[in-house]
Amino acid sequence: MAKKTPQFDYDLLVIGSGPGGQKAAIQAAKLGKKTAVIDYNPFVGGVCLHDGTIPSKSFREAILHLSGYRERTHYGSAYRVKNRVEMADLTHRCAAITADIEQTVRSQLLRNSVDIIEGIGSFIGKNEVRVKRGPKEEILSAKYIVIATGTRPRRPQGFEYDGKVILDSDGILHMEKLPKSLCIVGGGVIGCEYGSMFSALGIKVTIVEARDQVLGFVDRELIDNLVYTLRSQKATIITNDKVVRTAVSPDGRAVTFLESGKRIVSEKLLISAGRIPNTEKLNLDLLHIKRSDRGNIIVNENYQTSVKHVYAVGDVIGFPALASTSLEQGRRAACHAFKLQDAPFNPVLPFGIFTVPEIGMVGKTEAELSNDRIPYETGIARYSEVEKGKIVGDTTGVLKILFHRTTRKVLGVHVLGHDATEHVHVGQLIMSFDGTIDHIVQNVFNYPSICQAYKTAALDGLNKVVATQNLPQRFADSEKLAKLEKEENTSIN
Amino acid sequence: MAKKTPQFDYDLLVIGSGPGGQKAAIQAAKLGKKTAVIDYNPFVGGVCLHDGTIPSKSFREAILHLSGYRERTHYGSAYRVKNRVEMADLTHRCAAITADIEQTVRSQLLRNSVDIIEGIGSFIGKNEVRVKRGPKEEILSAKYIVIATGTRPRRPQGFEYDGKVILDSDGILHMEKLPKSLCIVGGGVIGCEYGSMFSALGIKVTIVEARDQVLGFVDRELIDNLVYTLRSQKATIITNDKVVRTAVSPDGRAVTFLESGKRIVSEKLLISAGRIPNTEKLNLDLLHIKRSDRGNIIVNENYQTSVKHVYAVGDVIGFPALASTSLEQGRRAACHAFKLQDAPFNPVLPFGIFTVPEIGMVGKTEAELSNDRIPYETGIARYSEVEKGKIVGDTTGVLKILFHRTTRKVLGVHVLGHDATEHVHVGQLIMSFDGTIDHIVQNVFNYPSICQAYKTAALDGLNKVVATQNLPQRFADSEKLAKLEKEENTSIN
Repeated sequence: MAKKTPQFDYDLLVIGSGPGGQKAAIQAAKLGKKTAVIDYNPFVGGVCLHDGTIPSKSFREAILHLSGYRERTHYGSAYRVKNRVEMADLTHRCAAITADIEQTVRSQLLRNSVDIIEGIGSFIGKNEVRVKRGPKEEILSAKYIVIATGTRPRRPQGFEYDGKVILDSDGILHMEKLPKSLCIVGGGVIGCEYGSMFSALGIKVTIVEARDQVLGFVDRELIDNLVYTLRSQKATIITNDKVVRTAVSPDGRAVTFLESGKRIVSEKLLISAGRIPNTEKLNLDLLHIKRSDRGNIIVNENYQTSVKHVYAVGDVIGFPALASTSLEQGRRAACHAFKLQDAPFNPVLPFGIFTVPEIGMVGKTEAELSNDRIPYETGIARYSEVEKGKIVGDTTGVLKILFHRTTRKVLGVHVLGHDATEHVHVGQLIMSFDGTIDHIVQNVFNYPSICQAYKTAALDGLNKVVATQNLPQRFADSEKLAKLEKEENTSIN
Repeated sequence: MAKKTPQFDYDLLVIGSGPGGQKAAIQAAKLGKKTAVIDYNPFVGGVCLHDGTIPSKSFREAILHLSGYRERTHYGSAYRVKNRVEMADLTHRCAAITADIEQTVRSQLLRNSVDIIEGIGSFIGKNEVRVKRGPKEEILSAKYIVIATGTRPRRPQGFEYDGKVILDSDGILHMEKLPKSLCIVGGGVIGCEYGSMFSALGIKVTIVEARDQVLGFVDRELIDNLVYTLRSQKATIITNDKVVRTAVSPDGRAVTFLESGKRIVSEKLLISAGRIPNTEKLNLDLLHIKRSDRGNIIVNENYQTSVKHVYAVGDVIGFPALASTSLEQGRRAACHAFKLQDAPFNPVLPFGIFTVPEIGMVGKTEAELSNDRIPYETGIARYSEVEKGKIVGDTTGVLKILFHRTTRKVLGVHVLGHDATEHVHVGQLIMSFDGTIDHIVQNVFNYPSICQAYKTAALDGLNKVVATQNLPQRFADSEKLAKLEKEENTSIN
C-alpha cells in the first residue's frame, strides 16, 4: 500500500519525541510511511513528560487530594486528608504516572513501526541527519524532516542559580523537601501554576511580576478572582515591580531584590523567566533555516520552515507553545508532507492553565473586545449558582460568556474553577460552529453538572440584551448608538 | 412594561416547585408576568432536591471522597481516606448541600417576585385552583397553569415495605446506619446508581433485574464494563430473573424470593420498581385533562395538555423524566404561554447516569443503529490512553463515538468513567451542530484533559474508515455493499 522512497532511509525523520514529534511520527506511520524519531533522552516523551506538563499536573492532583483542598467547603478550612504532606508523598505518584505514560507513548510508536533512535540529531546535508550518542554516530537520510526539539527554561543574567535554593522550573520538582516559603519570579503560566499549588499546600508563596497583572493574557475578572483566592491563602502577589538580582544568603536562604527596594527572603526561589528554543545543536545554518529574533524557527501555515521539506512544530516555533497545539501541529505537518487533505475546519484554540483553581479560556477577552470596539455583552454564572458546584464544594468558580450584542455570536468563554480546563471545550465547540448565545440557552445540560453554568450564564446574558431592547426608542436611535452600530458592522464580518 | 391580566390573580400559576416548576415560574417572571408557585412542602425544590437527585449525588460525592475510591489506582486497593465510614459521615454533607440549594432556589424565586404558596393545589374551575394547607384554604385564579407535580416511587404488591428493612428510593438515605449487605430489586437508573455507590463503599450489593441487561437503554459495551467493575468489587448482578415476593425474616433480615427459586438474604432491601405520577390530588377530571395508561399527563410539543391553557412539565409527563429536561420543559412552556419565540434549535438530549463509574450518553447506541441498518463505524478511546486518565487514576474509563461511515456524521457518543456526565456535552454539541468525526479529529483539546479522548477515539474511528477505503475495488462494488449503500441513503436524511 505504502509507496517507499528507496533513495532515503526514511520517508520521515522526526527530531524530538515530545507531543509534536510523536504525533507527526504516528500520523506518517498510519499513512504507511517509514518513520523514525530521534531523541537525546533514552526515554521518549520530551520535556512535557519528564520535567514539564505531566509531572506538574500529577503533582497538582496529588496536592489537591492529600491537602483536602477540594473538600474544605464541606469539612472546614482546617481539613486535611494527610496531616503532614511530604515531598515524597507528592512525587511518588508523579514517577509512576510518568513511567506509565512513557511506556504508552513508546508502545504506540513501536506498534506503528516507528523506529526510536537515541542520540543528538544535527543536519549534515539537505536530507541527511547525523545522530550522535556518546562516541557513536550514524548518518540517516529522509525525504522529510520534522524538527520538534522544544524549549528549555531561560536563565537570565544576575540570578545565582545553584539548583538547590535558586531553581528553575525543571528543578522545582526535584526539591528534596517542601520549603516553608517560596518566592517565584515571573507571574506567567508556570509561575502561577506552581505558586497556586504550593499555596494550596499551606506554603507561604510570594509571586513577583514585572507587568501590572499576573497572567496578562487572561480575562481580568478571572485573574482578580484567582488573586483573591491566593491572597486568602496568605500568598503575596507583587505586580509592577522588577527583580534586580537574587542571591543566596550565608544561612542558605534566597534573597530577591526588587527595583522598588523591597527584599524578599524565602527558603526557596523559583525563577520562571520564560523558555528558549533548543536549536543550537541542529546545525540549522547549514540549510539556512530562518529563525525569529527570539530564536524560534519560523514556519508557514503548513509548518514548513524556509526549507520546504523541513517542518518544525511545537514549542520550538513559539506561540502558543502548548502541548495541545503541538500535538495537532505535528499531525498536520505529517498530513501536509504526505498530501493527506484535511477538511477545512479551523477550531478556535482553547487554553488551559492548571492553577488552583484552574482556568479554561477560548476566544477573546473583555479587554480585547473593548479594544476592538466590538459591542459585546457578558453572561456570567457562578459555580455556586449550579447544584453541582455546591455538591463538589466549589463556591468560588465562575463561568463567563462574551457574545456580540446584535449577532449574538459567542466571542469568548472564560472559566475559573473545578475542571475549567475540561469544561471550556463546550464553549470552544460552540464557537467553532459559529454558535450563538441562543444555542446555549436552548441546550439541555445534564443535571446536576458544572456545564449547566453555561445555560445559567447564557440566560443571564440574554436577559441583559432583552433589557436593553426594551429601552425607549430615543436611546436606540441616538447618534452615539448609531455610530456604535456602524463600527460594529465593520468590526465583525 | 408587563401587561397585567386584571381578571386573574396571576398570569401564571405553577403547581410543584421541582426543577420544571421553578424554571416555568422564573421564565414567566423574567417576562414581567405575575407568577406564583404552589408546593405542599414548606421547602421548595421538589423531590429532586429533597429525596432524589441532589441528596443522592451529594451522598455519592461523599462516598467517592471518603472511600478513597478515586485514589486507589495510585495508593492501592486497600486505600481509604476514612477507615470506618458511617452513615452520618455521608449524610452530614447532604443536609448542608440541600439546605444551601433550597435557599438558592427560594431566593431566586423571591428575587424575581414569584409568590411561594404552601399547600396542596387542586382544580376547582378552568382557571381556578384551591390551595389547602391543613384546615386553611384559599382560591387562586390564573390565566395559565403549569402542572409540575412530579412522581413518587411505585410500590408493587407483594413487597412488605416497612421503611426499616425493606425500603424504597425515598427511604434509602434515611437509614440510620450502613448495612453490611444490600439487595436491590430493579436494575434501572436508581437501582444501579445506589447499587454502585454502596458497592464502592465495600457493602455487599446484589442487584436483581428481570430483563437481560441492567440499564437496558445504555450501550451494551458500557454496561459490560460497568458490570465488570461492580463484580470486581464483589457485587452480584442477577439478570433474567424476577422477584416473586419479599419478606422480613424473624431475625430482622430481608429475604428476596426469585422466580428461579433463588433466595437472597440481606440486611436491607431497596425496591426500585419505577415511579408513578402525582396527579390524584389535582382533580384533573374536572377539566378532562387526558392521561396515558401509566397515568402520565399527555402533552403536545409545546407542553400543553388537552386543555390548552394548562401545561404540564417534568416527570409527571413521563419520559425522559430527567431534571435536566424538566428544567427546559418548564422554560419552554412559559415561553410558549407568553409567546416568546425561541430560535429553532433542537439539541440532542444528553443522559447522565450517576453510577460509579458514571455514564454519559447522547444519540444512538450500537444496538439501535444496527437495528435501523445504518452503516456506522466506531471510534474508541480508553481513558488510560490519555494522559489525564492516568493522572486522575481512571484506568477503566472508555469513550466511544459512533458515526456514519459515509457521511461521517456523529450519531452517538457513549462515555463511562470519571466525569462522564460532564464530558458527554462535548459530543452533544458536536451532534447538535451536525458535526462529523473529522471535526473531532481536527479539533484541539487542552492537554492534559479527559476530553482528549474524543480526539483519540475519532482518530481510531477514522483509521478504520481509511482501512476499508483501501479495500480492493471488488469489495467496494459487491452487490451486498451496493445494497447497503442504498439502504443507507434511505435511512439517513
